[in-house]
Amino acid sequence: MKYVRVDELDFEKSGGLIPVVAYDGRTKEVLMLAYANKEAVERTLTSGYAHYFSRSRNKIWMKGETSGNVQRVLEVLVDCDNDSLIYVVEQEGVACHTGNRTCFFRKLVL
Amino acid sequence: MKYVRVDELDFEKSGGLIPVVAYDGRTKEVLMLAYANKEAVERTLTSGYAHYFSRSRNKIWMKGETSGNVQRVLEVLVDCDNDSLIYVVEQEGVACHTGNRTCFFRKLVL
Repeated sequence: MKYVRVDELDFEKSGGLIPVVAYDGRTKEVLMLAYANKEAVERTLTSGYAHYFSRSRNKIWMKGETSGNVQRVLEVLVDCDNDSLIYVVEQEGVACHTGNRTCFFRKLVL
Repeated sequence: MKYVRVDELDFEKSGGLIPVVAYDGRTKEVLMLAYANKEAVERTLTSGYAHYFSRSRNKIWMKGETSGNVQRVLEVLVDCDNDSLIYVVEQEGVACHTGNRTCFFRKLVL
């Protein structure tokens, strides 16, 4: 496994935020997609808990800070363009505010 | 499983493009993250092959159209906010232009 430093990530291309896929390392499910700025990524790596940047509230949040449904981060993976991430997590409780385990519980049709 | 129509997706929030996670339905791996506009999503559903919108080339592309590494789409899942998608796919060959099976083959460190 090769390594990438946070300083090498390309936040500029997407206006300071990059998309992050939260992926359950045990169940192998995609739980949610959110965004992170550099500080959110740094806080994730230093604390071991998933942090994101809320586009609607315009601030960093720790997943589960109010609900208790925190995500312990096992590792963070980087894509080949350095502009998107996977947080490989252990999810406490459910990921979705609807009460579903994953936010992706509906199917798209034309 | 509930259903969402393409017309219900929120492309506006992110300037016409929404992030799409390509997820291998057999290996349960996240293969890549790319973007789609409404037309790319519609082409995906009608053709059964993953289509995206390239931000650098400013046009729709079918994954594998030059490399042959196409993605047959088993289903498309929608998140609770209607602003991100999962293409559940069967990957022909590898997903990454580097020759790796997934684009997420490196680990992030501080």
